[in-house]
Amino acid sequence: MHNSVRLLGLDPGLQHTGWGLVESAGSRLRHLGDGVISTDADQPLAERLSVIYRGLVALIAQWQPDEAAVEHTYVNKNPGAALKLGQARGVVLLAPALAGLRVAEYQAMEVKRAVVGTGHAEKPQVEAMVRRLLPGATIRRADAADALAVAICHAHHRGTKLAYAKGYAPA
Amino acid sequence: MHNSVRLLGLDPGLQHTGWGLVESAGSRLRHLGDGVISTDADQPLAERLSVIYRGLVALIAQWQPDEAAVEHTYVNKNPGAALKLGQARGVVLLAPALAGLRVAEYQAMEVKRAVVGTGHAEKPQVEAMVRRLLPGATIRRADAADALAVAICHAHHRGTKLAYAKGYAPA
Repeated sequence: MHNSVRLLGLDPGLQHTGWGLVESAGSRLRHLGDGVISTDADQPLAERLSVIYRGLVALIAQWQPDEAAVEHTYVNKNPGAALKLGQARGVVLLAPALAGLRVAEYQAMEVKRAVVGTGHAEKPQVEAMVRRLLPGATIRRADAADALAVAICHAHHRGTKLAYAKGYAPA
Repeated sequence: MHNSVRLLGLDPGLQHTGWGLVESAGSRLRHLGDGVISTDADQPLAERLSVIYRGLVALIAQWQPDEAAVEHTYVNKNPGAALKLGQARGVVLLAPALAGLRVAEYQAMEVKRAVVGTGHAEKPQVEAMVRRLLPGATIRRADAADALAVAICHAHHRGTKLAYAKGYAPA
């Protein structure tokens, strides 16, 4: 018999931040919930970040996850877009940390390898495998599927040295 | 006679976040305090962001500023560096917003123009003018001088349409 843990996967974005909650007990996974926190592009930036933060605080209070996991977002666009995404990502890392949760970070390739079996899988393959691994999941948005994929990856790797790596080391 | 307001200027950085507090009454400015919140590069990213956040919450509780101002950081480096800086900037925008403060944002050129008189001033000129405008300031680090410059800029522009612009619009 295994103790179960609740793992919160997060996929940060200023417009849409995906979240997915998974219960892990030994090698068994169970879908608990998923969704997206969206912000209004007409609002000032500080207000949009507050919406993301308050949404995460409410989620954490409601679901009481034990640990959180966030994907290292790979940014191949311009520095302005990276700065924008980074602002949302900072808030997404902060909220669970302030709530006392350990926050793991995984490279996109690690997430794909954990979910699909290869680090070079395409997005639709990842989403299809998330649906197969978590039969109860509805997943209305791709952002939520990505968040569930990170939660699944963390279920595989928590307790290993891969998780909780220090800082952010872009490739 | 003018009502005085306390303005908190912030210069975000994952390693060092500068802060500067200025009292503005009509056209008069007074230096109240400045400093830097530093984080340990050996700590996990979420922990470093928590240190910045808690530092800002403590500052706001201690000084009770009325408004905050943050510079639009211009990023000419690689997307990885921009993402890293963005993460700190997100937390720096969030903390005063959650405390109920309005958070203004200014382009670097606007800050230079407000402090030195030209948008093309060099960093040492900005720091020299900050020292001249705020005779009591000690300013031990450049990050704190930049933060005071943003606070001075906000003192000039608050109440005009320049402040509180929506979102972040990289050039």
